Amino acid sequence: MRNVVVTDITRANLDQVDTLAEYGVATVHEGLGRAGYLGPRLRPAYPGARTGGTAVTALCWPGDNLMIHVAVEQCQAGDLLVVAPTSPCTDGMFGELFATALQVRGVRGVVIDAGVRDVAELRQMGFPAWSSSVSAQGTVKATAGAVNVPLTIGGQLVRPGDAVLADDDGVLCVPRQQVPAAIDAARARTEREAATRKAFLDGTLGLDHYGLRPKLDQLGVEYLSEQEYLRRAGG
Amino acid sequence: MRNVVVTDITRANLDQVDTLAEYGVATVHEGLGRAGYLGPRLRPAYPGARTGGTAVTALCWPGDNLMIHVAVEQCQAGDLLVVAPTSPCTDGMFGELFATALQVRGVRGVVIDAGVRDVAELRQMGFPAWSSSVSAQGTVKATAGAVNVPLTIGGQLVRPGDAVLADDDGVLCVPRQQVPAAIDAARARTEREAATRKAFLDGTLGLDHYGLRPKLDQLGVEYLSEQEYLRRAGG
Amino acid sequence: MRNVVVTDITRANLDQVDTLAEYGVATVHEGLGRAGYLGPRLRPAYPGARTGGTAVTALCWPGDNLMIHVAVEQCQAGDLLVVAPTSPCTDGMFGELFATALQVRGVRGVVIDAGVRDVAELRQMGFPAWSSSVSAQGTVKATAGAVNVPLTIGGQLVRPGDAVLADDDGVLCVPRQQVPAAIDAARARTEREAATRKAFLDGTLGLDHYGLRPKLDQLGVEYLSEQEYLRRAGG
Amino acid sequence: MRNVVVTDITRANLDQVDTLAEYGVATVHEGLGRAGYLGPRLRPAYPGARTGGTAVTALCWPGDNLMIHVAVEQCQAGDLLVVAPTSPCTDGMFGELFATALQVRGVRGVVIDAGVRDVAELRQMGFPAWSSSVSAQGTVKATAGAVNVPLTIGGQLVRPGDAVLADDDGVLCVPRQQVPAAIDAARARTEREAATRKAFLDGTLGLDHYGLRPKLDQLGVEYLSEQEYLRRAGG
Amino acid sequence: MRNVVVTDITRANLDQVDTLAEYGVATVHEGLGRAGYLGPRLRPAYPGARTGGTAVTALCWPGDNLMIHVAVEQCQAGDLLVVAPTSPCTDGMFGELFATALQVRGVRGVVIDAGVRDVAELRQMGFPAWSSSVSAQGTVKATAGAVNVPLTIGGQLVRPGDAVLADDDGVLCVPRQQVPAAIDAARARTEREAATRKAFLDGTLGLDHYGLRPKLDQLGVEYLSEQEYLRRAGG
Amino acid sequence: MRNVVVTDITRANLDQVDTLAEYGVATVHEGLGRAGYLGPRLRPAYPGARTGGTAVTALCWPGDNLMIHVAVEQCQAGDLLVVAPTSPCTDGMFGELFATALQVRGVRGVVIDAGVRDVAELRQMGFPAWSSSVSAQGTVKATAGAVNVPLTIGGQLVRPGDAVLADDDGVLCVPRQQVPAAIDAARARTEREAATRKAFLDGTLGLDHYGLRPKLDQLGVEYLSEQEYLRRAGG
Repeated sequence: MRNVVVTDITRANLDQVDTLAEYGVATVHEGLGRAGYLGPRLRPAYPGARTGGTAVTALCWPGDNLMIHVAVEQCQAGDLLVVAPTSPCTDGMFGELFATALQVRGVRGVVIDAGVRDVAELRQMGFPAWSSSVSAQGTVKATAGAVNVPLTIGGQLVRPGDAVLADDDGVLCVPRQQVPAAIDAARARTEREAATRKAFLDGTLGLDHYGLRPKLDQLGVEYLSEQEYLRRAGG
Repeated sequence: MRNVVVTDITRANLDQVDTLAEYGVATVHEGLGRAGYLGPRLRPAYPGARTGGTAVTALCWPGDNLMIHVAVEQCQAGDLLVVAPTSPCTDGMFGELFATALQVRGVRGVVIDAGVRDVAELRQMGFPAWSSSVSAQGTVKATAGAVNVPLTIGGQLVRPGDAVLADDDGVLCVPRQQVPAAIDAARARTEREAATRKAFLDGTLGLDHYGLRPKLDQLGVEYLSEQEYLRRAGG
Repeated sequence: MRNVVVTDITRANLDQVDTLAEYGVATVHEGLGRAGYLGPRLRPAYPGARTGGTAVTALCWPGDNLMIHVAVEQCQAGDLLVVAPTSPCTDGMFGELFATALQVRGVRGVVIDAGVRDVAELRQMGFPAWSSSVSAQGTVKATAGAVNVPLTIGGQLVRPGDAVLADDDGVLCVPRQQVPAAIDAARARTEREAATRKAFLDGTLGLDHYGLRPKLDQLGVEYLSEQEYLRRAGG
Repeated sequence: MRNVVVTDITRANLDQVDTLAEYGVATVHEGLGRAGYLGPRLRPAYPGARTGGTAVTALCWPGDNLMIHVAVEQCQAGDLLVVAPTSPCTDGMFGELFATALQVRGVRGVVIDAGVRDVAELRQMGFPAWSSSVSAQGTVKATAGAVNVPLTIGGQLVRPGDAVLADDDGVLCVPRQQVPAAIDAARARTEREAATRKAFLDGTLGLDHYGLRPKLDQLGVEYLSEQEYLRRAGG
Repeated sequence: MRNVVVTDITRANLDQVDTLAEYGVATVHEGLGRAGYLGPRLRPAYPGARTGGTAVTALCWPGDNLMIHVAVEQCQAGDLLVVAPTSPCTDGMFGELFATALQVRGVRGVVIDAGVRDVAELRQMGFPAWSSSVSAQGTVKATAGAVNVPLTIGGQLVRPGDAVLADDDGVLCVPRQQVPAAIDAARARTEREAATRKAFLDGTLGLDHYGLRPKLDQLGVEYLSEQEYLRRAGG
Repeated sequence: MRNVVVTDITRANLDQVDTLAEYGVATVHEGLGRAGYLGPRLRPAYPGARTGGTAVTALCWPGDNLMIHVAVEQCQAGDLLVVAPTSPCTDGMFGELFATALQVRGVRGVVIDAGVRDVAELRQMGFPAWSSSVSAQGTVKATAGAVNVPLTIGGQLVRPGDAVLADDDGVLCVPRQQVPAAIDAARARTEREAATRKAFLDGTLGLDHYGLRPKLDQLGVEYLSEQEYLRRAGG
């Protein structure tokens, strides 16, 4: 079942994905009950980008980018290409030529659990990339894989057509069906954050804003003076 | 003894800490006989910041930032918050809301042996952070820890009230009692560095400036022509 | 044989090295049949630099930069200093003072499989560095090593006098004798890349441009509709 | 949807799982077209065990084993407990007491993408464990998670009720519906391996047994004498 | 202050340390409220040993074991040597000759946050070692450090004279003054564990034994049938 | 130049290699002035083996073991197969079938900077393996590489025909031409170690045996009583 290319995937609604992307990765992640984050290993090739799109997925053999070529044909405007190798790989499987081909098609960026190269060119083109390494090491086009099958990165399942959001904090996957609910959750979270920010700017403490003091009592957290602490800690 | 909050810690003299911070992490580290560096794992969330402050410490359960809320209340102007988890953790325990609460109180920045998030916002706010990862992964507020107890990061002990300096080279802890001596050492080191820089700009070699040639002799380092080297290595 | 300094190494032709460096690491690496890349562990201390030079090599004991002082004397205009420790090391073996001494001599930059420090100063000076870590941790000058002997970084052999290229994608070593051929290969690769870029901008797919469709057939890659895929995947 | 416990999962046929387990992880993995391996990070706590069972899954907060207690109740004879944290964690979330509770219920072992402890006791009990670390660091019981939801380890999806096999080579997940086909594939693979082993013992080369020589020609692999190689490489 | 050797340290009572060591690392760690564990990076050079002793500490330069020679002289029967480098190091700083010198003096073993070598010989001698790597890479005797000063490994402070326990689960440090309390805590913990083990062997669940069901309710953990779960998850 | 197979390599004298191997990795490494160690990343697949042989080398694409098949044909009795991938790889590129083919030819074992599998079977066959990971993940046979060209592992150059030694401490490469000198050095080292061992068993300290006390003085190492140390360390 591995060597397949699925051709007509159902995508999340792009307008909704764009709305969601504006909230940013951390906020949507919190809104969703802290789920869907692809982990700290994925870092932006250059800082400052924030984007989102619908996932086209490619599963590649390590050191081999044949299936990325296959995936390009499946991409359309608003997509975000998500690539995973079948085993750990740091090679530069993606570079400026792929970025050119994708930018022409209106693709928003790339997320890859392996290496990217041509980082200076990607920055110049404004084609954002999130990857687990930067490497000039080139790859071959020799081994089959799959396009538009579910894959996992950082312990999270990414299904073709899911919404994928990315910014300086990393990458988030929101299952296609949950996008509308995620917008509501992100909006509510943003409003709560705005209220909290205002409270914090006014000098209110999180301990009070979130009502945490009783929990501290319950957990047996004890307040001591330095003198008392040193006395107990030892002669 | 773990679940304690020490409330009235003795801090290093802030004027002295500010004086010390201007010398930068690498220079003060050398001045102190190459001690106190918190290791290469801590990296700035965005480049270019240089700061220093008096340490308020928080010891947290992995995946749990309850004690950071407790620590905020213990922070005052000139402090720098230092957070360590009780076991390895990459989660985004600290973000923009905490930064807002701390900035209001005049806190200089955060140092955390775990993840930060909202990196774009931190950069925009000018609230510097040094961390061992960047991660959007959120945390809960469920488990007790400690505030203003000694903790260790990268093999170095950080005591509450110690001077903590941070820049693009990482983070340095200077024990509270050693701050005045550290200023003297950093000043002397800076003067020596200026003299060395001048000598180097004039073309003097380190071998001569530091008098290293006799040591090379003593260690048996041999100078060979390429031809002689190849003759011995090969054939 | 370890404690030697080779004094009169044969260097690649500097004009040719400069010509080669303009093509960038990834392109030359591809031109050479995907060889010579020093691996993803070496990262620029600050982004944006692209340079090349002739290698002067230093093999150091971990935590000890004595042999870098020795190497400085062997450096001349157009060189690029390449440093490796005899065992894994993250210490800040190289900083602003060394950079000053090297810049005076016309050295192009440093590549080190260990740590650098004074990152802010290096950026300000415009002296580029590629390293496997950033660390303020200082080093001693106590143990012998070698200068201008072959060493390896990231599985690649670097011989003194070889061409070393570096940019945001990392570091590449081109054996001295291969520099002329590498220029030809890089030029040819660049022309092919330009043609490919133009084709991609015109909407041609890599699948067609590289003639990959027969290979997919041969590998048994199958195209399926989403419906058919889900039907086969089960239930 | 995260805080759920699914109570009556459909399991793979245990007799079939037992049949499959005898073939070992590497053979079944090959039989399935090189799919389903949970990666090299999972290592046995002690060498020599080989087992298989039906997956009961637990998704836990880092540093928190509450949901393992919940999972125990869902386990029955022939199961194998599979635990993943919601973010990277090395803590000793599983030890001898859990093993006791599971062994009483006929559970075959544990697979955990975090730490185990009481390694000496587990060895003595004969309760095998595969984990990404060994750590005595204890955990709390404070935060919710899920039991018997799909989770991923090492880029592989594990669904409750799937067949999980484990031996000294690591851990493999076979989707529940594929177990019968996997048995056929493993048997066929085993027969092919036996034939290959016999051929190899008779001195036949893999080059001939697998018919690889034409491929080498096609790839342009060239056979050279040492003398010819050195002549081309060098001087 | 770094280059010192403290000669007459106050040690924990050895009889008490021996009593404590019998309880094992994990149990004492739990008894102490989950504190003092030196982390999962330290692994036994060979499995099966369990020991304890009073800490003699050595702080070494990376790649340099001079201070271990100094530390040997400070060791006496019942001690356990604890070694940390001043920055990350994997070299084989400790081997069979050191083990011989220490075994003659009645030292119990070695704990080192760097490499050991002569692993086969250590196993044969029955001299246990816990280390963060195994490496044959040799070291020099060129740079000063300290003996019997506090040092930290895995985020834990180890003071000379503290009790250090080690077994297959790793290494634990118990502050000297807390040894008597730790014995009481470990005994109580062991009794609780025995009761729990008995309950588990009788089929009682941890959920009931620890009274966790109300907490699950409070956290909103929901029990669902597979059918209901799939209905909600899917579509 | 990469896609070559060198067919008639010059090997180190096997009798001499066997003599050398008996001294063990750590001793020969020291005898050679601490050179040639392939680093702590290579670990034995099962403990207890000690062997040596003449290197046949294979350079493979990640995830692809085609060139190991080519290498087998080049192996003869007394060889030890050394495999490196062209970029970082953890896949199980070597297993029981390869071991069978090699054992028939009298090959001593395998050293691979990637993964091995069939660990239980290798142990049973007594075919030792040193690798940087254990992984069941299978590989393809699709991409060219090289056999019997120089390659590097852990910063060390391994040339075909060199002597390679391996035991529980890891792997060492001794250049072919240096084998006779290495035997002399190892014998001398062994005699010195025997004398040292005897001295240590008699209670002599390394400080005296190696005459290190003057060096400590010269380095300014100071001996203090605990009382004096605590007085200086702070109030």
